[in-house]
Amino acid sequence: MLKGELFIAGERRASSDRFQGQDPATGAAIEDVSFAGASEADVADACAAAEAAFAPYSTLPLEQRAQFLEAIATEIEALGDALVERACRETGLPPARITGERGRTAGQLRLFAAEVRDGRWQRVRIDHADPARIPPKPDLRLRMIPLGPVAVFGASNFPLAFSVAGGDTASALAAGCPVVVKGHRAHPGTAELVAGAITRAAASTGMPAGVFSLVNGTSRRVGEALVADPRIQAVGFTGSRAGGEALMRIAAARPRPIPIYAEMSAVNPVIILPHALAARGTALGAAFVASLAMGAGQFCTNPGLVLAVDGPDLDAFIDAAGTALTGQPAQTMLTQGIWEAFEQGKAKLGASAHVTAVTQGAEGTGPNQGRAALFSVKGSDLLADPVHLHEVFGVSSVVVRCADMDELIATVGQLEGQLTATLQVDAADHPAGARLLPVLERTVGRIIANGWPTGVEVGHAMVHGGPYPATSDSRSTSVGSMAIDRFLRPVSYQDMPAELLPPVLNDGAQDNIGARIDGRWA
Amino acid sequence: MLKGELFIAGERRASSDRFQGQDPATGAAIEDVSFAGASEADVADACAAAEAAFAPYSTLPLEQRAQFLEAIATEIEALGDALVERACRETGLPPARITGERGRTAGQLRLFAAEVRDGRWQRVRIDHADPARIPPKPDLRLRMIPLGPVAVFGASNFPLAFSVAGGDTASALAAGCPVVVKGHRAHPGTAELVAGAITRAAASTGMPAGVFSLVNGTSRRVGEALVADPRIQAVGFTGSRAGGEALMRIAAARPRPIPIYAEMSAVNPVIILPHALAARGTALGAAFVASLAMGAGQFCTNPGLVLAVDGPDLDAFIDAAGTALTGQPAQTMLTQGIWEAFEQGKAKLGASAHVTAVTQGAEGTGPNQGRAALFSVKGSDLLADPVHLHEVFGVSSVVVRCADMDELIATVGQLEGQLTATLQVDAADHPAGARLLPVLERTVGRIIANGWPTGVEVGHAMVHGGPYPATSDSRSTSVGSMAIDRFLRPVSYQDMPAELLPPVLNDGAQDNIGARIDGRWA
Repeated sequence: MLKGELFIAGERRASSDRFQGQDPATGAAIEDVSFAGASEADVADACAAAEAAFAPYSTLPLEQRAQFLEAIATEIEALGDALVERACRETGLPPARITGERGRTAGQLRLFAAEVRDGRWQRVRIDHADPARIPPKPDLRLRMIPLGPVAVFGASNFPLAFSVAGGDTASALAAGCPVVVKGHRAHPGTAELVAGAITRAAASTGMPAGVFSLVNGTSRRVGEALVADPRIQAVGFTGSRAGGEALMRIAAARPRPIPIYAEMSAVNPVIILPHALAARGTALGAAFVASLAMGAGQFCTNPGLVLAVDGPDLDAFIDAAGTALTGQPAQTMLTQGIWEAFEQGKAKLGASAHVTAVTQGAEGTGPNQGRAALFSVKGSDLLADPVHLHEVFGVSSVVVRCADMDELIATVGQLEGQLTATLQVDAADHPAGARLLPVLERTVGRIIANGWPTGVEVGHAMVHGGPYPATSDSRSTSVGSMAIDRFLRPVSYQDMPAELLPPVLNDGAQDNIGARIDGRWA
Repeated sequence: MLKGELFIAGERRASSDRFQGQDPATGAAIEDVSFAGASEADVADACAAAEAAFAPYSTLPLEQRAQFLEAIATEIEALGDALVERACRETGLPPARITGERGRTAGQLRLFAAEVRDGRWQRVRIDHADPARIPPKPDLRLRMIPLGPVAVFGASNFPLAFSVAGGDTASALAAGCPVVVKGHRAHPGTAELVAGAITRAAASTGMPAGVFSLVNGTSRRVGEALVADPRIQAVGFTGSRAGGEALMRIAAARPRPIPIYAEMSAVNPVIILPHALAARGTALGAAFVASLAMGAGQFCTNPGLVLAVDGPDLDAFIDAAGTALTGQPAQTMLTQGIWEAFEQGKAKLGASAHVTAVTQGAEGTGPNQGRAALFSVKGSDLLADPVHLHEVFGVSSVVVRCADMDELIATVGQLEGQLTATLQVDAADHPAGARLLPVLERTVGRIIANGWPTGVEVGHAMVHGGPYPATSDSRSTSVGSMAIDRFLRPVSYQDMPAELLPPVLNDGAQDNIGARIDGRWA
């Protein structure tokens, strides 16, 4: 079924540069097929096709664009067990997780199809002329248009929902932007299956061929060439801080710099306020580890830092968390590289003179199995060494013993930007919570009360984003319907004859799209 | 009346580093007062005060924020003739222009006051919980919050409307961001008068002192220190491409990069389609020169490039334009530096082997008087030398003689990003216009039909922006009510107790702010 080929504008393409998929559970190559690595010429061809597709794709009726997104969802579902099996084999993730992620991926595509039809993302505004005014007031009409071809980098930890047909691709296609995906080398077979689904959906719904391409490769140059290509007008990326910052530099150094939405790094502080800690510290300890250990800890929103005021209540939390963590079996991580980075991260934390190792989970019994770990540090020492705050991608977290609420709040105020912060807060903690909220609003994209940061709901009010270095651009979200805004920009038409205006800007064509007409919202 | 002092968080502050204002009409220093240049410590103090003001300012009731903006407008108007006289003396612009600009400045402030009250900029979204769903669906509530302290660079060519209390300042304050202005050295007295007005408005409406500061200086280090300051979270700039790109590099190189909205450079192509050219080429020639010569050509939207199909009709247009331009008196330019750059720009254009000098305006009779100039070039030669497309800031324009519509459209498609494009288009030209529009949408922020690019209406549907290098960030506008969006980012609250939620996110608090509740728009 797999052919190991690239997808350039609807055509499969071979390459002499080959690489193998890896099974992280065995540590061995998956031998059934090898995969084509893209050359810079392949990247250029994909970008040229995306540019050629921009005008026809972006001007299709919105209904047709929505049907394309829905057809992708249907084609992905039609891949059936083959997709689940391949994704599990390439990632070490269990079938239930991949099945759930497939549902989320299809749901995202349908959410963006509905968003395309909704039409409010066009943000239509009309200011009618007033020729009698001195000076005469012109007629002005504004709408959002797509930026142009978008480069998307698949993430290793969501082989479906944040990879080839994931949130970045869905939101860019919804905005009217052709997409060139740089597939993640960790799941090339999964990527090929999904790329085939997109390609079939594009053909069956009459899309221009260049609306989608997939380039793979193990060399950094594939991704670098993609971001540097003058036809690419925006970038979506989910991955490491080093990877994101490298792409940010390329995007900024282009003769014409472009927006880059890189979702990079976070430790997602969980703050347990005193009354909540006293009332339910033991239960919180167990629930915390359940969130921490989910998916081998390989979530952007994994709770890597817990802050609370020191004392017997915190001891009880740590005891409960430690007990839960000690019982955690080692889990196969996504790749050998991620497992190695996890081991190094834990070793660096453990080597800090300020850090106490609380406990570890069960030892691994096979390759690439990450052993859970819990550490603690005093609040006054947390900021002494940056290593205490580096994201350790996997089941590892640091409990911060703060002297009092003042120290806790001051410490939180000095954290770098984060995707999330979580408050465990009882009614009697609300005054302390009210002090924390303004600090957290400056620091994170999403604030959770009495829950856990893992689990990112795909809806209209979700923000998966946050100040640097959580993301490269805090003005947006990469999950949820608002993600479409990332790939749009405004254009204004002044005194334009009706015949030349885009139809949505003509008088009377703004039904149910929330237009702002002469300052008033319809 | 003028003291030549800085304004740091409501306090005037002196400095031993002094500079003089200049009267461009005489070329001499204005001797009544010298002005303080800020040290890096002054910049740091202003930024620290802005950071301290952020929490109290951003959480004020919106009504109070709106009243502050209105009070600034009233205080500026109360400066009366003293402001107009000083601005005219420092810029060489005539009183009618400065009086009009004062009205525009006050109008902008009031527009943003109304926008603050309108409240839709908060983009409230609520997705209610569904505990019965598997997995349970959380309650999510989203709003936009201000980014933090904003640095604004005053522009030389709009000493009121794009300087200390101009569009960038008004939109940042409206968003809830304290502002530190780097005043332009070309109008320090004007800047001081306006800073005094803002400071009085802040005091009378009970704003935190750090909500506004003004730092001046002739050294580049003042602005560089401002953009590099870790407390600054966004930058608004209007000026040269070299200046904007220097600030972009600083913003990108910070440990935590920040958004920068730099409005830099454009030649604003005017495209005269064949039927319009045949029907009214002579009238268009005269009207074109009126737009070109307005304000000594010192507008971001000045029409620096005219494209049309070559032939007798274009000859007639050029004849009419040449006649009008020959009669243009030389006008005093804003600064000696701008006049020198204008002379150099014309000389470089004239030195190109591809360029023909059509005519010049009257010679200057005093210092810093710019002599109007009109050039022409063949369409096939336009892209041969980048100098043909460099913005020459002043009364200078290049007419491009295209062989046919295909060459014209291909040429337009290769232009860099622009603030505006203008079509002169008759009904019979609509098919050609329809071919051009998709090309122009990719290239510019505003497309004008049968008018001229100068004159930027302050309204809801205006886009003053465009692809690079017109601006550093095409996703926004610096004029009009949508400019507030530049200084906002989304935050989501998950399962937050009502007592801790920002009031606007509680159930039932979304009257008339266009909230999106469970996917439906209220």
